[in-house]
Amino acid sequence: MVLVNARNPLNIGAAARAMSNFGFLKLSVVNAFEMAFREARSAVGAAALLAQADEYESVAEAVADCSLVVGTTALSQRNPEHVVRDLRDGARFIRKRLAWGEVALLFGSEKRGLSNKDFSHCHWLLRIPTREAHRSMNLGQAVAVCLYELACDAKFASPTERVRFAKAADLERVTALLGEGLQACGYLKGQPNRSANGRSAAPIEEKIRRFVRRMNLSAKDAELLLGMLRQVLWKLNASAGNLKK
Amino acid sequence: MVLVNARNPLNIGAAARAMSNFGFLKLSVVNAFEMAFREARSAVGAAALLAQADEYESVAEAVADCSLVVGTTALSQRNPEHVVRDLRDGARFIRKRLAWGEVALLFGSEKRGLSNKDFSHCHWLLRIPTREAHRSMNLGQAVAVCLYELACDAKFASPTERVRFAKAADLERVTALLGEGLQACGYLKGQPNRSANGRSAAPIEEKIRRFVRRMNLSAKDAELLLGMLRQVLWKLNASAGNLKK
Repeated sequence: MVLVNARNPLNIGAAARAMSNFGFLKLSVVNAFEMAFREARSAVGAAALLAQADEYESVAEAVADCSLVVGTTALSQRNPEHVVRDLRDGARFIRKRLAWGEVALLFGSEKRGLSNKDFSHCHWLLRIPTREAHRSMNLGQAVAVCLYELACDAKFASPTERVRFAKAADLERVTALLGEGLQACGYLKGQPNRSANGRSAAPIEEKIRRFVRRMNLSAKDAELLLGMLRQVLWKLNASAGNLKK
Repeated sequence: MVLVNARNPLNIGAAARAMSNFGFLKLSVVNAFEMAFREARSAVGAAALLAQADEYESVAEAVADCSLVVGTTALSQRNPEHVVRDLRDGARFIRKRLAWGEVALLFGSEKRGLSNKDFSHCHWLLRIPTREAHRSMNLGQAVAVCLYELACDAKFASPTERVRFAKAADLERVTALLGEGLQACGYLKGQPNRSANGRSAAPIEEKIRRFVRRMNLSAKDAELLLGMLRQVLWKLNASAGNLKK
């Protein structure tokens, strides 16, 4: 479980308690800003889990080893770029994938949730079906509900076909090379470098990152695609070099 | 929902917030001892619900109008006198009964839970399946998990979004362009053009086709990828043309 930009140490502690209740013992915290969260009194019975939490400066680092990255959201409308699954349905997917490799479940800050940049690291999004008139849940409660559902029926479905999925770090490599290649061949020229409202700093990078996540690459296919991209880049650069001569 | 002997106003507020999230709008509080719970800041978005909560001096009064009274417990062993149902199973019973009349769901104090006297008012008990090594949940989180399960399949489930997947013809177009591009940049040079036994006529084309299928592209993403590939090809061919001149 990954908490991104959580602002209240008590919520981090509450999340740790719910994790311990439902048997999810690995907590990662992104951008905790040297907050004294490790002593949060709300982590009743989960002090050890909290003490062992990993701290990261970016989502990319926190999820590097995971082959499935799922973000949580209160709104189903906000992200037309992502598939949004209701918790019960999504939990089924996650349980299957847990049998094959590590899965990261991301929760955003109390006020704003996850940012679009955070979302761009996600394969898809998970939504707790709440009342339309009051969607936004307390962070610790949202964590508890999600982990309850994940722990339910915990017998893992025996996968008929085992696919080893690419880890987030490999997908980041694909994202970077693809971006480089599209840059080199002029594909990105026509694309706006800012979103319509001018707020988001790097919409293209996020767009490419989301595209790569949606491909759902296996570890092998990520390798294959990296090889292709390297060759394309080599050729594009070689041609450019020759042209200059 | 009935909170019995809750000690921390913040937990009462958190319970109110979860109730509002999941559409259960009637809160009763037993033995609140004139606590200032009505102003609890944790009831984000549920101030009205908290303001309208009913106060009672006994469980009997609080549940008087209900045709089913269910207590919550962390332990399955403690009450041989009662049937204890796991949440998912129990929620099914409760949902059925909700169609006929009022149901009370009781939560005890943070420290001790419900007393045996409280239990004696209950038809049966509900348990959230937590890890044996760490059974006791935070009150607000336990409320959220129970109400999530009760609301499930019922009210706010949004149908999982339908992804329109790319048609085979589009995937063939992607396959052809990708093959062309890999040819143009020399990626295919090192690849054997026949399978080891020499029987299959076009192993590379098949390999690329399978690779493209495994990506599981949506119709939109297939369009996107086609655009990228066209631009790469255009650039590679333009460079090659310039070189020849």
